Amino acid sequence: MSAPAPTIILVDPQMGENIGAAARAMFNFGLDELRIVRPRDGWPSEPAEANAAGAFTAMKPITVHESLQDAIADLHFVLATTARPRDMVKPVYEPPAAIKACLDTNGRSAIVFGGERAGLTNDDVALCHGIITIPTNPDFSSLNLGQAVLLVAWECFKNHTPHTPATEHQPAEHAKIEEFFVRLEGELADGHFFKAPELRPTVMRNIRNLFLRGMPSDQEIRTLHGVISALNGSKKS
Amino acid sequence: MSAPAPTIILVDPQMGENIGAAARAMFNFGLDELRIVRPRDGWPSEPAEANAAGAFTAMKPITVHESLQDAIADLHFVLATTARPRDMVKPVYEPPAAIKACLDTNGRSAIVFGGERAGLTNDDVALCHGIITIPTNPDFSSLNLGQAVLLVAWECFKNHTPHTPATEHQPAEHAKIEEFFVRLEGELADGHFFKAPELRPTVMRNIRNLFLRGMPSDQEIRTLHGVISALNGSKKS
Repeated sequence: MSAPAPTIILVDPQMGENIGAAARAMFNFGLDELRIVRPRDGWPSEPAEANAAGAFTAMKPITVHESLQDAIADLHFVLATTARPRDMVKPVYEPPAAIKACLDTNGRSAIVFGGERAGLTNDDVALCHGIITIPTNPDFSSLNLGQAVLLVAWECFKNHTPHTPATEHQPAEHAKIEEFFVRLEGELADGHFFKAPELRPTVMRNIRNLFLRGMPSDQEIRTLHGVISALNGSKKS
Repeated sequence: MSAPAPTIILVDPQMGENIGAAARAMFNFGLDELRIVRPRDGWPSEPAEANAAGAFTAMKPITVHESLQDAIADLHFVLATTARPRDMVKPVYEPPAAIKACLDTNGRSAIVFGGERAGLTNDDVALCHGIITIPTNPDFSSLNLGQAVLLVAWECFKNHTPHTPATEHQPAEHAKIEEFFVRLEGELADGHFFKAPELRPTVMRNIRNLFLRGMPSDQEIRTLHGVISALNGSKKS
């Protein structure tokens, strides 16, 4: 039994043509689940249809989401595609290792691509467990969205031979992790943890990165809630 | 010392756009030598230029040839790309093995792509040493010329470049992590976190595992100490 192939998520895609090209690219290599966050030109889209070469009719129904947060709520391991290095402590994978990590996940994985112009925001990257970066010619780096999706899908197809996940560890769904972060941030604010309000987003991003690297399970998220409660209550008695 | 990267040869390409897309695709992954056999719409080509995203200016000068025979005259190992099986007794490679065969060649190699509509003729395939075929989804096979070139170039790049370590992340020394765990355990005990004393070692082991998987840095350990202090103090005020 192998983990299911990763879902592809496009965040802020601009031209429908590029959504179609991404769908065509991924479905050539058997990836059949696409989610779209805030498509600029709307959805459904005729140019997307035209560029997909028929892929949409055979793939799972496309879903549209208002935020990446929402799009990954039911997933367990999510990688953000970035072209430039980000100042975040997260594991960085090249495509073959990224696919291996997705397929080793005991649960459902996704690979997230940003819009054509600017890529993903740091906040969106911070939601993910790790980063996937496609190395290119240092003198000429001009991969478009469809090409990036194609390479990722190809690596997946090559490596999607049945194998068992490396561990029994089942990471929690994103929504449960998010709930923990929201609570933690609230309690930290109550405890005057954030000395400078303007640094609060950065500090929270760093804390997120640390916990996401550990890929906590449901049980561990419950434990972390217990830890907060215990620490919070410990000055009461 | 590795053999030079393979030359890309397009035979009977139709639209200039696709020649440009092929150039852009290959040069992203450092392949800089392109030869064209009988371009239907002529050469040079404005649509090709427009689609190449600047690749032509940095690549070796493109050469145009009247036959594949002529285009491969100075080369030592040539593979023909075909989508469908041909009734020819030749070695058939998937992309990784094809690239390895090219780079293992003691001499110069090339990978040949046919036109958009019909691919290579059997006569052209017969000129080559072997066949490269890109496996796709059995239910949806719709790779265009630029995509096929992209995948071949990517496989070449992956096998032709030294790898850099994925991240600069420096995990904290064990002693610092241990100090954090000791403090956390003490504070949790004060907060009546451990309901059953006999389970305390197991619970702490699970918490350790979670944090160790994240491999916190020195800075992150300091942040975690700050988190404990903030949570502890939050009921005081």
